[in-house]
Amino acid sequence: MDNKDSYKYERIADDVSHLIECGAFKPGDRIPSVRQMSRQRDVSVSTVLQAYYLLEARGLIHARPRSGFYVRTDLPSDLPEPEISSPAADPTQVSVRELISMVARTETAKPDLVQLGVAHPNPSEAATKELNRTLTSVARRMGDAIGMYDYPPGCEELRLQIARRSLTSGCSLSPEDIIITSGCSESVNLCLRAVCEPGDVVAIESPLYFDALQTLEALGLQALEIPTHPRDGISLDALTFALEHNDVSACFVISNFNNPLGSCIPDEKKRDLVDLVTAHGIPLIENDIFGELYFGEMRPSVAKAYDREGLVMLCSSFSKSLCPGYRVGWVVPGRFYSSVEWLKYTSSLAAPTLSEYAIAEFMASGGYDPYLRRVRRVYERHVAATSQAVRRFFPEGTKLTRPGGGFILWVQLPETVDSLVLYKRAMEAGVAITPGYLFSASDQYHNFIRLNAANWSNKAEGAIQRLGDLVTRLV
Amino acid sequence: MDNKDSYKYERIADDVSHLIECGAFKPGDRIPSVRQMSRQRDVSVSTVLQAYYLLEARGLIHARPRSGFYVRTDLPSDLPEPEISSPAADPTQVSVRELISMVARTETAKPDLVQLGVAHPNPSEAATKELNRTLTSVARRMGDAIGMYDYPPGCEELRLQIARRSLTSGCSLSPEDIIITSGCSESVNLCLRAVCEPGDVVAIESPLYFDALQTLEALGLQALEIPTHPRDGISLDALTFALEHNDVSACFVISNFNNPLGSCIPDEKKRDLVDLVTAHGIPLIENDIFGELYFGEMRPSVAKAYDREGLVMLCSSFSKSLCPGYRVGWVVPGRFYSSVEWLKYTSSLAAPTLSEYAIAEFMASGGYDPYLRRVRRVYERHVAATSQAVRRFFPEGTKLTRPGGGFILWVQLPETVDSLVLYKRAMEAGVAITPGYLFSASDQYHNFIRLNAANWSNKAEGAIQRLGDLVTRLV
Repeated sequence: MDNKDSYKYERIADDVSHLIECGAFKPGDRIPSVRQMSRQRDVSVSTVLQAYYLLEARGLIHARPRSGFYVRTDLPSDLPEPEISSPAADPTQVSVRELISMVARTETAKPDLVQLGVAHPNPSEAATKELNRTLTSVARRMGDAIGMYDYPPGCEELRLQIARRSLTSGCSLSPEDIIITSGCSESVNLCLRAVCEPGDVVAIESPLYFDALQTLEALGLQALEIPTHPRDGISLDALTFALEHNDVSACFVISNFNNPLGSCIPDEKKRDLVDLVTAHGIPLIENDIFGELYFGEMRPSVAKAYDREGLVMLCSSFSKSLCPGYRVGWVVPGRFYSSVEWLKYTSSLAAPTLSEYAIAEFMASGGYDPYLRRVRRVYERHVAATSQAVRRFFPEGTKLTRPGGGFILWVQLPETVDSLVLYKRAMEAGVAITPGYLFSASDQYHNFIRLNAANWSNKAEGAIQRLGDLVTRLV
Repeated sequence: MDNKDSYKYERIADDVSHLIECGAFKPGDRIPSVRQMSRQRDVSVSTVLQAYYLLEARGLIHARPRSGFYVRTDLPSDLPEPEISSPAADPTQVSVRELISMVARTETAKPDLVQLGVAHPNPSEAATKELNRTLTSVARRMGDAIGMYDYPPGCEELRLQIARRSLTSGCSLSPEDIIITSGCSESVNLCLRAVCEPGDVVAIESPLYFDALQTLEALGLQALEIPTHPRDGISLDALTFALEHNDVSACFVISNFNNPLGSCIPDEKKRDLVDLVTAHGIPLIENDIFGELYFGEMRPSVAKAYDREGLVMLCSSFSKSLCPGYRVGWVVPGRFYSSVEWLKYTSSLAAPTLSEYAIAEFMASGGYDPYLRRVRRVYERHVAATSQAVRRFFPEGTKLTRPGGGFILWVQLPETVDSLVLYKRAMEAGVAITPGYLFSASDQYHNFIRLNAANWSNKAEGAIQRLGDLVTRLV
């Protein structure tokens, strides 16, 4: 290859780079095949290959065997990640209700918003239609039999399916370990009630999704916020210190793809976490609601997998991975099984029967895995595209998380930007975000916002551009 | 008419009486038409009419215009009603969990039981099939849109339908007064949490269905059991005394067709009850879950209808009147609206979307009223038939309630009969009943049992006969 050829392949690589950066090729898109490009630019196949290898080396594209070259979904970001959080070191009475109600009220009044705030899965990617079909056939087949109360622990077939899947997250649960609930929120609520009294202190990752904070508040529990890293989750050093200096009744983490941080506690660290709480005899409430939505090769394990003493209470649901409207979650309460089962009984008596059986059948028929494989790729692309848009449109000084799963991004804005002011201006501009204030009980994260990447679209891109302009003006 | 004719019509009346008493004609059955009987007995039409008028006067049959003569469903019973209850006069720490768990465990282990215990509606009379059809069409029509979280207060169309129906129970609610829940149990739980702290005292009707007692126990509340009459409900004299001598945080009643008593607080007395709690500034939690299943001409009103200060918290669901597996209830929390809405949010986040929309559509399409008219007649006949069977097979000294709605009977056995001993023997004989012990926090009702009349059948009749034999042996 002479100099002229070298010039050619670098030129091709730069052109493709540019198209990726400006968004003409989006994360997950296939770029033209080597043969096409060779014809289009009138160069040899080996020159194009040279260009593509250079793009691979720059971390912009990757090859898929027998398929072609694709824009990477984890494009190298110019944006640094936020640092580990540093919340208040003392337990705090939780009082987020008013702020959250204010935000909820404003949004309800404006249904035409581009919604980048609430952590809903993408409605058109959720398995609603497939599930509804299954539900219809279950309803027809079971008739009257489906109508009665299904008391805790709930539908046996569904518990069997959940138990079988637990192998992929490092557990070997039996159906008898599992109680069906009306969603992960109910699971968390029941676990907290089973192991805490009003006034007790719960150690939590910080920042933490505000529904959990509200549940603590409603139960009269205090939050002890633990520094948490946006990549590998709760700081064990900080937690160790906290447990040694406070009377803590329970610890609560989102082990995989924390909401809002996106952090995923590495499997080895999960083991250490379980060892730590076990040494203190403290129950660990583990929320794994995003665990199935990983972008990597393997499902991360759950902390429950390392639980030898029955102290880990695993909470999850199908709300992020299938369909929230079905209201089906579960809990694996370990040694607190009978308390949780009884509290479920006294709180809402039974689970929605048809929803349970429909999901059980959907899983048993083999529909869940292909669905998950597809939706993981969708969310991976959407997270990458949303990240790229933030990079393009937000001002210097912005920091951004790089989640390995889920569909939530946590954005640190320049320090002078107040996320509540931004929230109000964004609402006026027809865009909903979630201000950082809502993710702490101790008045943190003023210059942070949560973005939901699930619904990436041209409209969402436009909204992020408007948002970027607003942020720039607030710097 | 000469003497011979007189003899003839009395003879016909006696024969029909006998057939009714031995159960050949069951409550609700049509007896032979006047013309048929005239041919069969070779007597004049006017003689048969004479006989039928006599049977009407004896309270055994009644005429339906253009339809014929029917066996009354409220046949005069030989059995007296139980007296007004006389529970302990002091607040009691509730502790029923263990006993109830024991009963639940035993029954789960024996699925082939004739189930006369649990207060389930009749599966083949529940509207499950109709509802499932509606749900199928809603699912098809709404597609993805049905899949997301439906946050409190829940489906607007359903709240609109509930608001419209409130006219028939004396209210004029607006959709904004109503919050959708996962069933009446959740409604009651949320109301108690909204107005009570652990340790508080709640005045309740006694006896009371054990799910409510368990909820009190789970929330750490004390029960103050108020004497209650099997016909007209809670004693206002006793309640007045209790409120004057105790620090009561809330009062809880099942205003219409109490479970297990069958009592229905007369409308005028409901007004007095509301005046009483209002004078004391105490919230009244009203469970109206059986209110639509009245046997009379008119739906009884709810206490909420007399509420001027927003102190009545009305709880209900579709579990008895439509289908429990759908898990859709509601609450009208009055002045405690925002607390209850928030607690719903923090307890289980959202309602099962498809169930809500299916019931809303079922109501809007006009299907609910014809269904209710049919099922009320079914339960009226089943309650009458079950009562008659108790009268035939149970020993002297048995007392029995005469509910004007619902499908629950409360049986007072001779004093020497221990309902837990009976429960165990009945289980061995393949029959499940609910022992009276479960309906009080203060160790009452040893010689009472609850019977569910919803599933009346030949099998149920046989079970009641076996039960009667067992009771007789225990006297």
